Amino acid sequence: MAVDPKYLSSFRCFEDLSDEQRRAVAELAEAECFYPKYTLFEENQPGERLYLITEGEVEVLYSNGERGLTRVDRLGAGEIVGCSALVPPYKHTSTTRSLIEIDVLIIDAIALRELIQEDYSLGFYIQQHIMRLLMERISNLRLGA
Amino acid sequence: MAVDPKYLSSFRCFEDLSDEQRRAVAELAEAECFYPKYTLFEENQPGERLYLITEGEVEVLYSNGERGLTRVDRLGAGEIVGCSALVPPYKHTSTTRSLIEIDVLIIDAIALRELIQEDYSLGFYIQQHIMRLLMERISNLRLGA
Repeated sequence: MAVDPKYLSSFRCFEDLSDEQRRAVAELAEAECFYPKYTLFEENQPGERLYLITEGEVEVLYSNGERGLTRVDRLGAGEIVGCSALVPPYKHTSTTRSLIEIDVLIIDAIALRELIQEDYSLGFYIQQHIMRLLMERISNLRLGA
Repeated sequence: MAVDPKYLSSFRCFEDLSDEQRRAVAELAEAECFYPKYTLFEENQPGERLYLITEGEVEVLYSNGERGLTRVDRLGAGEIVGCSALVPPYKHTSTTRSLIEIDVLIIDAIALRELIQEDYSLGFYIQQHIMRLLMERISNLRLGA
């Protein structure tokens, strides 16, 4: 797993990192393309990867009793899914799959967590970006967008 | 502003901090009680304080064109409001006010931000807890709870 560190510069998530930090994260990252209906992760699975959507759209599904898996949200380019991989107990709370073809940057979250234990500022700045995304998501949901 | 550092131990937000870190945060904290209909902060105001609700309930309001301020959410004990005070551009996105009498722990967010610049692990663990709360809020909103 690895991408060119320069590629990470185009992500807002990494804009506050130093060149050295970006190089370290690039070692844990991989650019991937998935076909429609590809399941990125499932509810209750351990969170081991973070997905930065660069193109396309995913649907977020919750299991809902007898109704089974039910779509509760859709997220597109610029969003990060699998954030549970950064918060204990590191377990996914949704099933997430591509609605159309998607391009994603995948980060090995287990390795990222280890890296953060040695450099908290790296984790702090990534968290700040994710918090901003989560707060925007909350605003959109509150407005029924 | 200051509370007994031991008081902070009862907050999940600070459970991953060291005693020394808790002592530093306690210097920036104050326990307060507010009457119903007290406005904690207003939309577009600079985010200067973080509010940990220990008792009671607040309403979250967005300004909504001609309809004026409209309630979009309610949050109770265990929640943290004013999270925008930790994320650039540090500007509140809602107006938040008490529905009933509330007890809160107020943290001076400007001083906290300065503290974090000297000790990122402190910021990392506080933000990890806030991310958990934001993700729970997203789940609740998705489920229409």
